[in-house]
Amino acid sequence: SAERLARLSDEWGRDLIRGYNKDWWHAPGRVGDKIGQLIGAGPGQVIACDTVSINLFKLASAALSLQHGRRKIVTDTLNFPSDLYILQGLTRLMGERYNIVRIGSKDGDITPDLDALDKAIDKDTALLTLSHVVFKSGYLYDMAAITKLAHKRGALVLWDLSHSAGAVPVDLDGCGADFAIGCTYKYLNGGPGSPAFLYVRRDLQEKVGSPIWGWWAQKDPFAFGLDYVPAPGISRFLSGSQSAIALLTMEAALDPLLAAGMDALRTKSLLLSEYLIYLTETFLTPLGFHLGTPRIQARRGSHVSIRHPEGYRINRALIEEMNVIPDFREPDNLRLGLAPLYTSFEEVWEGIDRIRRVVAEKRHEKYPQEKLTVT
Amino acid sequence: SAERLARLSDEWGRDLIRGYNKDWWHAPGRVGDKIGQLIGAGPGQVIACDTVSINLFKLASAALSLQHGRRKIVTDTLNFPSDLYILQGLTRLMGERYNIVRIGSKDGDITPDLDALDKAIDKDTALLTLSHVVFKSGYLYDMAAITKLAHKRGALVLWDLSHSAGAVPVDLDGCGADFAIGCTYKYLNGGPGSPAFLYVRRDLQEKVGSPIWGWWAQKDPFAFGLDYVPAPGISRFLSGSQSAIALLTMEAALDPLLAAGMDALRTKSLLLSEYLIYLTETFLTPLGFHLGTPRIQARRGSHVSIRHPEGYRINRALIEEMNVIPDFREPDNLRLGLAPLYTSFEEVWEGIDRIRRVVAEKRHEKYPQEKLTVT
Repeated sequence: SAERLARLSDEWGRDLIRGYNKDWWHAPGRVGDKIGQLIGAGPGQVIACDTVSINLFKLASAALSLQHGRRKIVTDTLNFPSDLYILQGLTRLMGERYNIVRIGSKDGDITPDLDALDKAIDKDTALLTLSHVVFKSGYLYDMAAITKLAHKRGALVLWDLSHSAGAVPVDLDGCGADFAIGCTYKYLNGGPGSPAFLYVRRDLQEKVGSPIWGWWAQKDPFAFGLDYVPAPGISRFLSGSQSAIALLTMEAALDPLLAAGMDALRTKSLLLSEYLIYLTETFLTPLGFHLGTPRIQARRGSHVSIRHPEGYRINRALIEEMNVIPDFREPDNLRLGLAPLYTSFEEVWEGIDRIRRVVAEKRHEKYPQEKLTVT
Repeated sequence: SAERLARLSDEWGRDLIRGYNKDWWHAPGRVGDKIGQLIGAGPGQVIACDTVSINLFKLASAALSLQHGRRKIVTDTLNFPSDLYILQGLTRLMGERYNIVRIGSKDGDITPDLDALDKAIDKDTALLTLSHVVFKSGYLYDMAAITKLAHKRGALVLWDLSHSAGAVPVDLDGCGADFAIGCTYKYLNGGPGSPAFLYVRRDLQEKVGSPIWGWWAQKDPFAFGLDYVPAPGISRFLSGSQSAIALLTMEAALDPLLAAGMDALRTKSLLLSEYLIYLTETFLTPLGFHLGTPRIQARRGSHVSIRHPEGYRINRALIEEMNVIPDFREPDNLRLGLAPLYTSFEEVWEGIDRIRRVVAEKRHEKYPQEKLTVT
């Protein structure tokens, strides 16, 4: 990515507007197809563009447009909150005709309540939308089974792959998933605020559209017609001009993932998380930690949450004194991300040992209970 | 920008997630305030984010939410087409309750029909939205007068500044404008697909919201609450994670514009366009060209369109043989952009002379009439 960024800087200065005729204009589809290889999507079904929130807004709206008469959207309380916000904002804009149902958890937000999910999906359900891997606990939904269940009842399914793309095997085409979205700045190595992606199954593309009708989504954008005509295929889900700098830098970051392959990445990811769980239970459980992530490998993504009543202060001490940066996630989760491409077993050992030292040496106690807020 | 890009590459590798605590997280507002200085907007009213299309979607929706009972949106046929598409898509999503009225032109798409505009804005008008500088002809609307007219009739006004920011003086606060949007990849030097910006007048910010409720727009994003609570002020118009690479590269590009100042930029811009018009009328009118841009300086932006029945083929010849890259704009416009910061008078002479040579030497006649299309 650093090399691509340096080259891009030269190209921009030299090619100017001509860069669009080289590899800028087609970047959303080209990068999308590369991401598609990592998530089980054949060509022409994925584009890289905009943000997760905006792509969810587009695709949730598209899904609802296909479901006349159905008035329920089913999701869960373990979903990433801004996915819920997007649904709230979209249904408000559409005139409050929809009812958003959020199923919960029976074990302290580690595992979703699958019985409640089963009951919630009924013949009034227009859309089921879930995070494939839950952002706090790392719980991994069974995409094939849940998609099948929803389809049997006539509901469409939209998966958020932010925490699974590049970390766990995903087979969108094989599962018959309808829609998917995801970010690229977690396991896809995309860097700070890199563009998101979206997937629309091929046979749905011509039946639906985006509500945000930008010029990159127009059939013949350089005719400058005054009325919108959707572009054929997946391009209709683009909107305005995409950042060439952000897209091409991110594109370069995908190549090592494609070279490794998802099977190898998953194998290493599970070895890393098994090792981390073993070390946690050996060294951290005696210090008051407990595991916030499923023990069953088949239901686990590529991050592990460890929980402690003093989690917030421990997290502060790790950042300030130990050069270890977990994500603190309310109320008591230290989320430890394992990127199989470059996280080593030695780093896992070292990280857990530093956490042990913070608590054993009571280093966290000098930090305030009050949380820092972003202003 | 090239320097900033190289430094950013290092910072990303070294600081990782910590970069957000340095200058990434606050970039949309910080860059927005810099843009604000170029468009007459005091601090806290502009953010840099997303795309022009998405920002128009957000702000048009916000405007309509304030105008209960009013059902008309007024714009013109000279507006950038995707601005019209966004209005079409938004009103479709909201249930077709709105009527979009587009006023035309009486002089072949150079000047909008101001009498028709006056008549169209009535007590049913919720929103007036126009491109401050028209993308084909370069016509410059009188922002103060038009805003005043609309306000007198109770309509809100949203200006698209894509072709004016950094090129003509804009005084949003002084005109009492309600909303504005714009791109940064024309006169703001932002580079390929750099983020757009949006403006919401301070006293309106707490009365409205965006329909796209992302986590950067949430009051306390790290509390991860399940229900959306809008952030105070202009931040509520953010949505998802913004590209740090795209924002910071663009930020660096603003400094030379701020150092030059809008008065100096406008003075040079008008001298450049006067010179270009003089050369056109002296050398190109005899070859079948006519001016597609207002002659009155007060009504002219910073680009000049020259029109010719063979415009498309002449444009092709200029690109292929002359290293001159105008934008061809249907049906017969060669649009010549004058960036006052770096376009020289010598370049204007040279460009017009190359256009003259293409036509005098009939070089365009070997190119097909059929247009290339983007696929």
